[in-house]
Order: sequence, then C-alpha cells, then structure tokens
Amino acid sequence: MTKNDLFLRAARGESVERTPVWLMRQAGRILPEYRALRGQLSGFKELVETPALASEVTIQPVDALDVDAAIIFSDILVVPDAMGLPYEMVEARGPLFPNVIKTAADVDRLSIPDPEDKLGYVLEALRITKKALNGRVPLIGFAGAPWTLLAYMVEGHGSKTFSKARGLLYTDPKLAHALLAKITATTIAYLQAQVAAGAQVVQVFDSWAGTLPPAHYREFSSRYISEICEALAPLVPVTVFAKGAWFAVEDFAAMPCRTIGLDWTEDPAAVRRAAPGKTLQGNLDPCALYGTPEQVRDATEAMLRQFAGGPHIANLGHGVYPDTNPERVKVFVQTVKGFRG
Amino acid sequence: MTKNDLFLRAARGESVERTPVWLMRQAGRILPEYRALRGQLSGFKELVETPALASEVTIQPVDALDVDAAIIFSDILVVPDAMGLPYEMVEARGPLFPNVIKTAADVDRLSIPDPEDKLGYVLEALRITKKALNGRVPLIGFAGAPWTLLAYMVEGHGSKTFSKARGLLYTDPKLAHALLAKITATTIAYLQAQVAAGAQVVQVFDSWAGTLPPAHYREFSSRYISEICEALAPLVPVTVFAKGAWFAVEDFAAMPCRTIGLDWTEDPAAVRRAAPGKTLQGNLDPCALYGTPEQVRDATEAMLRQFAGGPHIANLGHGVYPDTNPERVKVFVQTVKGFRG
Repeated sequence: MTKNDLFLRAARGESVERTPVWLMRQAGRILPEYRALRGQLSGFKELVETPALASEVTIQPVDALDVDAAIIFSDILVVPDAMGLPYEMVEARGPLFPNVIKTAADVDRLSIPDPEDKLGYVLEALRITKKALNGRVPLIGFAGAPWTLLAYMVEGHGSKTFSKARGLLYTDPKLAHALLAKITATTIAYLQAQVAAGAQVVQVFDSWAGTLPPAHYREFSSRYISEICEALAPLVPVTVFAKGAWFAVEDFAAMPCRTIGLDWTEDPAAVRRAAPGKTLQGNLDPCALYGTPEQVRDATEAMLRQFAGGPHIANLGHGVYPDTNPERVKVFVQTVKGFRG
Repeated sequence: MTKNDLFLRAARGESVERTPVWLMRQAGRILPEYRALRGQLSGFKELVETPALASEVTIQPVDALDVDAAIIFSDILVVPDAMGLPYEMVEARGPLFPNVIKTAADVDRLSIPDPEDKLGYVLEALRITKKALNGRVPLIGFAGAPWTLLAYMVEGHGSKTFSKARGLLYTDPKLAHALLAKITATTIAYLQAQVAAGAQVVQVFDSWAGTLPPAHYREFSSRYISEICEALAPLVPVTVFAKGAWFAVEDFAAMPCRTIGLDWTEDPAAVRRAAPGKTLQGNLDPCALYGTPEQVRDATEAMLRQFAGGPHIANLGHGVYPDTNPERVKVFVQTVKGFRG
C-alpha cells in the first residue's frame, strides 16, 4: 500500500484532493547530504552502480524536500553502457563515450542485454528503495528516449547542436533505424524489469527532442517512444517528457502514455486542448527558484493556475539546476501543497 | 543600382522570378579562402575590427557560393564591447566577458555610444563592401537582439541554460529592463548608422530566444525587438530571426518587420497562417548539408515546397555549421536557383 498515492492517482488521471509535486533531478544535485556522500566516492558511476548508495540518494529528497514521489537515482546512459558502449562521466564536463557508433558493424556489435544481467544494479537499487520507502510515496523508474541515447552514442558527448547525430539521420537513415530499434528493444526490457523491481510509474526522457525537425522527430524519435509506451502501458502509467518537442504534442496525445511532461516554453492550456484526457506534468522555469521566497511562491501559483481544468502533476520544466537553494525548492513544494485554486 | 535585386524585392514582399538564397554565417567559417586569411591574423577580433579584411570575407561567399546577398562580416558582441563591456573570443571555446553585469552600478557605467565613434570599424567595412560589391547583390547589416546580448553580458559566456541571465529576469526585473533599454538605444543608433553606411536590409538575431518562457519573452525580448523594428522600418526592410521562439510568431506578425526567419523546427505553412503578408526566411536544417549532392537537392526541394504560397527567402534554419563542405552549399544554392515549383 502506498500511503501518499496522490502522484500515482494523478498519473492515472484520477481525481486528487490536491496537486502532487516532485522535481526532475531531485535525487541528488542540490542537497548537501547528497554532496557529502558524493564527495566520498571515486566518481558518479560508483554512485550509480552501488545499489545501497543509489537508494540512499533516491530517498534523501523525500526526507529533505517532502515531495510526493521518489525517482530512482540513475542515469539514462546506463543503457548504452549495458549494450556494450561504455560512458565515462567527466567532472565539470559531462558524459563522454570513448567509442562512438559510426558503422553498421558498430551497431551489430551492440547487444540487447538481459536487464538482470547488465543492469541488475539499477534493479537492485529499485528493490532496496521500494522496501525502504515502505509505501511512503510512489517510486518512479525511467529511461532515456532512443533518439536521445542515439544522440550521445553517435556524438560521443554533450553538444549544443548534436550535428553529427542529426547528420546521420540524413546521411544514413538505415543505420540510424537499426540503432534505434536495438536501443528500443533494450529499453522496453529494461523498463519492464524496472516495473518488476518496484517502479510504479515510468518516465521516458527525450532530452534532445528539440534539436530535430518535426518530420525527423516523427520518423526517428516519437515512433520509438510510442513502441515503448505500447509495451509498458499495460503494466504502469507512462510519462513522456520530450524537451523542446512542442511540435509533437499531437503525437504524444495519440500514444498510450498517461502523462505528458511540459518544458517551460510550452503553454499548458494549448497542450490540454491538443491532448485531451492526458495528465500534464510541469512546468515551472527552473530559474524561477533563484527568486526570493515570495517570488517563488508567486511564480509557482501562476504556474498552477495555468494548469487548471485537468489532471496535473506539478514539477519544473526541466531538471532542477545544481546551484538552486534547497530552501527555495521547499517553498515551491509547500506552495503546491497549500494551493487551493 | 543593385543588379541582382531578387533578395531585396523578396524582402519587401514584392514578386520575384525565383526564390533568392543566402546563408547565415556564410561570411567566413566554411570557406578555405576565409581560413587562409584567418590563419594569418592574431585572432577573430582583428578580423572583425579591420574594415578591409572584414569586407574581404564578406564578399568571399558571393564569389565562391554565388549567393543572392552579402551579409557584413561582424559579431553581435561588438555592441556590448562598444558600450564598455569588452569581450574576448577564446579559440574553440567561444566568447568570454572578463567582466559581467551584476548591479545597477554596472548598468550605469555602460554608455550609449555614438556608432561612428565606437563602431566605426563596422561602418567603414560596410562602406568598403558596398563600393566593392558595386551593386552585384544587396548588402545586409545586422545586430543581436537585446535579450541575446543581455544573456551574454550577464552570463559572461555561452551556456546550455543561460540560467544566470534568465534568473536575473526573476530576481531583478528592473535591472534587466534598465540594461535592455540601454542596449536597445545603442542598437537602434547602430543599425541606423549601418543603413547610412550602405546596409540595404537589417536583420536582428535573437539567438537565445528559445530559452525564455513565452511571458518572459514578451516582457524582456519581443517588446525591445519591436522598438528596433519601429525605428528601422521607415528606412529599410527589417528581418527578425529568433531561434526557438515558435511561440512568438504572432508577436512578430504584429511588428513592422518585413521578414520573419524560421529555424528548422518551425512549420512554414503554420507561420504563414499566423503571419499573413510577411516574407518568410529559412529554414533547411544545417545538418541536411552533410548529405550527398542528391540528398541535399532532395531536402532543399522539399523545403522549398513547404514555403509555397507567399514570399520566401531561402536560407538555413540556423548558421551554416563550420564542418560543412562548401560543395554541398553550392548544391543548396543551385537547387534553389533552379527550382520552379
């Protein structure tokens, strides 16, 4: 039994007494207790790959920020890693793939791994966390969208333009589809295993959605997200968050996802009209949390009013920025909890 | 007399025999003759600040790529520099401001310079170029939008999020407006001087438009762009290119700009409906130029068909990427020139 099931009910489109709230990247990043733990470790990957520690930082924000859901602490790049393309996390620079995908032979060498075999550390973290939470709040699992994973696997690192990855869609669409199909198969098995390990909702993150022209987005991203939704929707509610993909709302509306995440450039009322019946999640500008407590309160209430008229899960429009004062996050959370329209 | 005035006529909304074509960032970046010249200099700023050299690289793409317009070689950051906030261009990293704007006193210290005094090198480059072009093609002047300049002046360098600059809009909107007003006044005088020096069209670049929530965009960006349009429209046709500002098309439609630039995520037909009577410019994905000649031709023709039904200036949806093969750019240009619907 989940004691606080507001998030779960909103994610199913059921009516709730008040709007539930959580933050993307709440697990870690801003909390001093996270930084203390992180400082004792060799690196980011040690934290991701050690289930007891990943579980500990997953629960920290539930204790510290009083949010209505926990999201497992992990990284979207564990999937390419498990497929045979390892990443490193370079301090202050971000992810780096020493090898990248260039040819059909590179794609052939990738495996579609058994999740228990190659991603057991995430599944174990979910099991430990589920037990430790003891039903306090629901537990969210997640994965990167196939396009976003391809973007890193081809580009090799973060990029303003992801021009190599986007270029591949023009120069070798067949190779791109072969890679996307393999990522999709891996992701479906991985998310199904996350559900078996205790995830009650799963979210698909398409961080680089906004880099694609709409026609490419449909061909190389949303169709694979749709396959993931089809496979997971019978098990748990699925959330799709595609940053910058304002042009794809109607695609998401037609998928069996239950919740659509909005970034801070999107208009909640317009998305409601385009996606009737869906729960919407978002979308306060993370920069709004740099304000005074009063400014944070005002911005949060203005955001909540924009989502009136349908099911809503309050969140930021992107992950919380690392230099955010946790006290302001608490103001955000408490404002949502106290809001009565 | 401008011999090839197709661009100018399309920019005025007049009918043309065929679609004119040019590229953002065509002046420099991809051409071997540009790199040869650039390699002999101490740095990027020497090229920008030496009128004869800036003029030379402005004309190179007219010779090499056969485009229908020349855009003066310069940088949007010359404006903060002229106001008293100097920038450096760090090799392989991009612009850096050793000092940034933090307080009202910082804004007070900035001047609204006489363009001939502080930006005379750009004006001189325009005069030399106009004479050297001798009417072959029209000459485009440009400036950064006030919001985009503020973003650099507050952040101090390029950024994925521009979170410091965006944060200022929440924490000290008054300071932001004081800075934006000063940038706007400088920009208007600067663009008027560009016209006096020979610019026949001016383009305003809002490179970081897409980082703002729509309400902030209206308050902190589009109203200042509108002021610039009001001041310049009586002199020359004005083009607004706001990357990522799909949500602001109706704002631009209401301004006295003549042309709206589209990035590659925007749907030309939808923008035509929202901005009737405007000329549209764009919007091929720069990554399409990584393809084979045949792929470039197909992508270009598909793009041209999307703009049917109103005045169009063919361009990319952003600046040409530095690793683009100039031969592919020629295919793009020649495909536009040969297209007959």
